[in-house]
Amino acid sequence: MDPRIRDHAAVLVDDCTGIEAGDQVAIVAPPAAEPLVTAVAELVGEHGGVVSTSLGSQRSQRAYKLAAAEETLAMENEMARAKYEAADAVVQIRGGENLSETGDIPPEKNATSKRANQAVQEALLDSEWVLTQWPSTGYAQKAEMSTPAYEDFVWNAINKDWDAVREHQAQLVELLDPAEEVRIVSGDTTDVTMSVAGNHAENDADDNNMPGGEVFTAPIPDSVEGEVLFDKPVIIQGREILDVRLVFEDGKVVEHAASKNEDLLTSLLETDEGARRLGELGIGMNRDIDRFTGNMLFDEKMGDTVHMAIGRGYEETVGEGNERNESTVHEDMIVDMSEDSRIEFDGEVVQKDGAFVFEDGF
Amino acid sequence: MDPRIRDHAAVLVDDCTGIEAGDQVAIVAPPAAEPLVTAVAELVGEHGGVVSTSLGSQRSQRAYKLAAAEETLAMENEMARAKYEAADAVVQIRGGENLSETGDIPPEKNATSKRANQAVQEALLDSEWVLTQWPSTGYAQKAEMSTPAYEDFVWNAINKDWDAVREHQAQLVELLDPAEEVRIVSGDTTDVTMSVAGNHAENDADDNNMPGGEVFTAPIPDSVEGEVLFDKPVIIQGREILDVRLVFEDGKVVEHAASKNEDLLTSLLETDEGARRLGELGIGMNRDIDRFTGNMLFDEKMGDTVHMAIGRGYEETVGEGNERNESTVHEDMIVDMSEDSRIEFDGEVVQKDGAFVFEDGF
Repeated sequence: MDPRIRDHAAVLVDDCTGIEAGDQVAIVAPPAAEPLVTAVAELVGEHGGVVSTSLGSQRSQRAYKLAAAEETLAMENEMARAKYEAADAVVQIRGGENLSETGDIPPEKNATSKRANQAVQEALLDSEWVLTQWPSTGYAQKAEMSTPAYEDFVWNAINKDWDAVREHQAQLVELLDPAEEVRIVSGDTTDVTMSVAGNHAENDADDNNMPGGEVFTAPIPDSVEGEVLFDKPVIIQGREILDVRLVFEDGKVVEHAASKNEDLLTSLLETDEGARRLGELGIGMNRDIDRFTGNMLFDEKMGDTVHMAIGRGYEETVGEGNERNESTVHEDMIVDMSEDSRIEFDGEVVQKDGAFVFEDGF
Repeated sequence: MDPRIRDHAAVLVDDCTGIEAGDQVAIVAPPAAEPLVTAVAELVGEHGGVVSTSLGSQRSQRAYKLAAAEETLAMENEMARAKYEAADAVVQIRGGENLSETGDIPPEKNATSKRANQAVQEALLDSEWVLTQWPSTGYAQKAEMSTPAYEDFVWNAINKDWDAVREHQAQLVELLDPAEEVRIVSGDTTDVTMSVAGNHAENDADDNNMPGGEVFTAPIPDSVEGEVLFDKPVIIQGREILDVRLVFEDGKVVEHAASKNEDLLTSLLETDEGARRLGELGIGMNRDIDRFTGNMLFDEKMGDTVHMAIGRGYEETVGEGNERNESTVHEDMIVDMSEDSRIEFDGEVVQKDGAFVFEDGF
């Protein structure tokens, strides 16, 4: 076994979830990820945990959803809920061989099923959970990389000293947490200002996403002013939205455009009241993620980027008495900050062309 | 998709489990069986059931059990129990690509894990369950057949008119059910007598095993006397036990031998009190199973055979007030009855050299 697989497993089991003797641990993964599943199961065994492994089948999921009526999909998967309720930790691994394998399920059917299984998702999120990536052929292709090169990319981003990462990121948290106003400027297409007064800056390292590597907070929903051009594609249900441009007034999107699939962007913004406002501002700091790969789990952590999510805000980032965006959607979109760009906190430049004020080269 | 896969799925969903709208259906299978899993999921979707699919990972199971201490394996998999308790039906599909994939797990570890998960097994058996076979390369190799020839074999044994099968087998049930004593004689190596007084003869067609095709009952645990040489290999955890010979006194195995892996047989017999006594007597009647393939699911249903299981007896076969073998193990072993053999019920010969009293050629 490639030793990097064991290292990856150790990051998941020791750093992210902290599995101990007696823990009930569910592992959920695609069949292609079996080597990582095996390494995780072995380590959980060494630590004295109990393992339940389920490899997924996207083909059967697709056949099922195509065959089932809406009223069938409106029923909860009680088996999955019971399983997650009994789990102390859940290790979720992505890595299908064809990213479009379930792409022809009608979106309404997926939405019905998602609504019916909200309690399943909540049971999962109530555990010590972590979401990570297996370097599958499908994701390598999406990244336009050979599989061995993609393996290097994934494991470089994941297998490292996460205490050191947390310490490095703490420098930004210390600046962002007390800040009241954030301004993001990139070229002549993005200039947006928002209040984060009273909200919390979170340090994401070896937590629920692996790779981690971002500092994030919540904008005050009504405070966002200006315009943003998101440079990188937004992928929703297997469809790509390109060149998303949003104009904000009093926190609300009052103008929007996209060069591809604008209708999908429109329907997203119309989901509910909160879908027209931001819920998250994140600053990517994982410098081992050195390219966009069309996978938000990595793209949003990339160094020299900022992401903003329309929709739901994370509870832990919203300060007492401050409003939280309660939308049912949460869609991250990315701005490249590597050139001709700056981030200001209360009028002070904290990042310029990708270098932070506490780094060499600023 | 090979139309025989859809036929197989229909036998499982319509005949064996009778899945209806609202049923929670768990599908458990090896990754190789994904085509059958997909056909089953699709049909359950059409019928309005909810599906939870788990493909297994023998490699991760092996790694886990090798790494885990005995005390870890003595803990129950609460996640699996919760899942099966929530399931109305469970479709279990076999068909690994390497039958020895978990063969190097120490037998004691498997025994500990099995004991710890008895309630998991009971929760599964409390559902409408069915166990069936995917014609995988590994099982084809075990059968010493090409994969296409093995596919023919599997689907010939499974895809047929199960009502007609049940009717044919009912003739034997009518003889066995009222019988008090059964004697099995084969060559000069097997001559064993047992009481089945008050116990029930079951007609297995499209029930819990697919293929089905046997009539079975439970011996009274203390009543078995004599000796048996099992002609066909017993495969436990990927290891083959050859030429098993058991001698019974007052129902208990007082002598045992095997020409290969006798230690495995010994440890099996020492699992618990019931492991030294029979729990089942079965008479194979599926004439489409025309050869031994080293797979008990098929071998025990083969025409012209008898099988006896040490360990647990099936509840439905044990008459009121009669003792049930409560062992945690259940291991079937086969005697070839095609030549120089006979079965007697209360002193009357009901089968001779493979032909039943109600068949031509008796």
